[in-house]
Amino acid sequence: MRAVLLNTGTELLLGDVPDAHLSFIAREIFALGLRFEEQRTVPDGEAIRDALKELFSRAEIVFVTGGLGPTSDDITRDIVAGLLGLELVEDVGLLESLKQRLAVRKIKWVPSIGRQAQVPDGAQVLANENGSAPGLYLKANINPKISSPHLFVLPGPPRELRPMFKESVLPLLRSIVKVPTIERRLYKITGIGESNVEELIGAKVLAIPGIELGYCARPSEVDVRVVGSPEAIRSADAIVQAELGPRIFSVNDENLEELLVKLLVKRKETLAIAESCTGGLLANRITNVPGASNVFIAGYITYANEAKIDILSVDPQLIKKHGAVSEPVARAMAEGARTRAKSTYALSTTGIAGPEGGTAEKPVGTVYVGLATPKETVIKKFFFPNDRETFKQQTAQAAFDMLRRKLIS
Amino acid sequence: MRAVLLNTGTELLLGDVPDAHLSFIAREIFALGLRFEEQRTVPDGEAIRDALKELFSRAEIVFVTGGLGPTSDDITRDIVAGLLGLELVEDVGLLESLKQRLAVRKIKWVPSIGRQAQVPDGAQVLANENGSAPGLYLKANINPKISSPHLFVLPGPPRELRPMFKESVLPLLRSIVKVPTIERRLYKITGIGESNVEELIGAKVLAIPGIELGYCARPSEVDVRVVGSPEAIRSADAIVQAELGPRIFSVNDENLEELLVKLLVKRKETLAIAESCTGGLLANRITNVPGASNVFIAGYITYANEAKIDILSVDPQLIKKHGAVSEPVARAMAEGARTRAKSTYALSTTGIAGPEGGTAEKPVGTVYVGLATPKETVIKKFFFPNDRETFKQQTAQAAFDMLRRKLIS
Repeated sequence: MRAVLLNTGTELLLGDVPDAHLSFIAREIFALGLRFEEQRTVPDGEAIRDALKELFSRAEIVFVTGGLGPTSDDITRDIVAGLLGLELVEDVGLLESLKQRLAVRKIKWVPSIGRQAQVPDGAQVLANENGSAPGLYLKANINPKISSPHLFVLPGPPRELRPMFKESVLPLLRSIVKVPTIERRLYKITGIGESNVEELIGAKVLAIPGIELGYCARPSEVDVRVVGSPEAIRSADAIVQAELGPRIFSVNDENLEELLVKLLVKRKETLAIAESCTGGLLANRITNVPGASNVFIAGYITYANEAKIDILSVDPQLIKKHGAVSEPVARAMAEGARTRAKSTYALSTTGIAGPEGGTAEKPVGTVYVGLATPKETVIKKFFFPNDRETFKQQTAQAAFDMLRRKLIS
Repeated sequence: MRAVLLNTGTELLLGDVPDAHLSFIAREIFALGLRFEEQRTVPDGEAIRDALKELFSRAEIVFVTGGLGPTSDDITRDIVAGLLGLELVEDVGLLESLKQRLAVRKIKWVPSIGRQAQVPDGAQVLANENGSAPGLYLKANINPKISSPHLFVLPGPPRELRPMFKESVLPLLRSIVKVPTIERRLYKITGIGESNVEELIGAKVLAIPGIELGYCARPSEVDVRVVGSPEAIRSADAIVQAELGPRIFSVNDENLEELLVKLLVKRKETLAIAESCTGGLLANRITNVPGASNVFIAGYITYANEAKIDILSVDPQLIKKHGAVSEPVARAMAEGARTRAKSTYALSTTGIAGPEGGTAEKPVGTVYVGLATPKETVIKKFFFPNDRETFKQQTAQAAFDMLRRKLIS
């Protein structure tokens, strides 16, 4: 079935907020054999009506996001009702639950909030556990006089849309779509660049009849996607596994931190992290994973040299002799963190994130990553001459991959 | 002038990678008086040709992103040349610089990389400082036989596109577009919800002739955007400032961490951070700001109770009596961090991020934020009953706002 996504909101086209819906919904619907043929963003106002009219004639399932809130630029509900010739009806239960929601949070009621309880006649209300605006489902040809596709109208904030999608939209979609006949696999790879990945697998995979192959490069990560029949996927998998082996860190769409927490939980081992140049990114990523508290003891963000000496017992002479960005200091940081936290492992990072602070000998992008284990401490030097946030992400990937390889070895 | 954005890439429509271009480019072009009328995403392949054909007839400036890399799904360059009836010509200088780029990074040369040195005849090459694929600019009606808009063809990875846009695209756009006649102002607000913001300013601002008003809610932040003539903007500004006052933390599109680093640098003061439930997010955000090393001494991510006792000298009896998520422990953490780091200020966070760990008395979402200053320590309790990452972001906003208000008071 042909599916399209329409994101509404002047704030999107002005760049005040990035879209987060396309990637989320695309992944969710793929499991049902659906993929988007197109995505559009249009401003608030009449452009929504024009785009919907055009997309109604071209798609069988349409998702619309945004414009369901309480403020005056939230007009999606009204446009949909108008296009489909449906009355807006006040949903008394919805109104009551809106009032309760605000009372719990001690937020003042203002009359405009009540607009969110207006529902096009015959539409199914999708509960919003994380916000005030409910979603709507209007089945195909809901008004028998007007031809229309299945239409899902969803709130703009991702933290409202996502739970609603999983809880309410997916069950409805399952009753609408047919069984998928294609599969997809995503390989997440680190430690090798996109061109070299293609050289290893490209020609061989594309020789499989009916296969679709795509690449996506991120900071220190290449994602390889294959789409095709179950047989084609099996053939492709054999090639990708043989050529890339341990460089593949996930085939389950897990990121490195999710994988590390899972591996550490399974092994009943613990982790501490000593960060200089990454400034807390490693710890932040690890603690985004639910259950991280079972394996993560502490993070030491020793930005100043004094903090490295105070917290990690780094010898001041070591810093004086080799500089804070050096192999011996990375080693002392990792070992100091492991000792201090009494953890099984400790990772350390020290480098020059830039834009200032580089020298001829140690240019911006130079970084040492340390891994202390019960048996030994390993240090690797990397060079990521990029912007500050990319540098931090690349260093985090490199550090996490060092620990991953130790855990699976 | 009518501007549109076409993002290409099956990986976008499959959800393997989120779009980051719309929000970035929209903000950049707004300063020149340009705004997007529409944005589309289409898959790799013939859909690019169809979309470009349609958009060529509707827009005066078209930006295309993606599909310029070395792999077999990178075909934007070929499609553009075909549509405009231009030959692809090898750029020898480009080929040489590609080879040098790989040599510096010790990446193996594979022949497909050379495809990136193919340029449609007459197109201007836009240098890529952060990747191998160059961008292209094709002026309007570059082939006199075919009507076409100004066309910018840009690489997919954001860290390549962004510097290229600032260095090469903006100067070209300035020579194409007329002087802007509308202005825009963005107010970043924290500590109050979207509905309440609208109640305070909505009707008054919308009474100004020709003004455009929009809202965007993020975790513990509301962004208010006004667009209009310079006179309208001045009138709106008076209303917004009078009604929202100190809740506005930026009118320069700065985030809270950028503001804090700027304020601390100016005051020659320093900061330490003790985090439990936020797990490094505060430190990570602060250290994303260039120059953070001038004011940020250390972060202590004391996830386990033992780490709170060891690093921050939190009295174990305090944890036993009140629990780790409590006012006294938040206080002890902030004071412990400030003492340990010898910093002017210290922030602390302790709470229940969920999804596990909540109790009837302290449900998931409960969090205490502490701020220790030379004169006193202040603790505030918040309740953010949301998903884990939103909870962390809301807590970070609340903590940063406590410090901001102290610094500007």
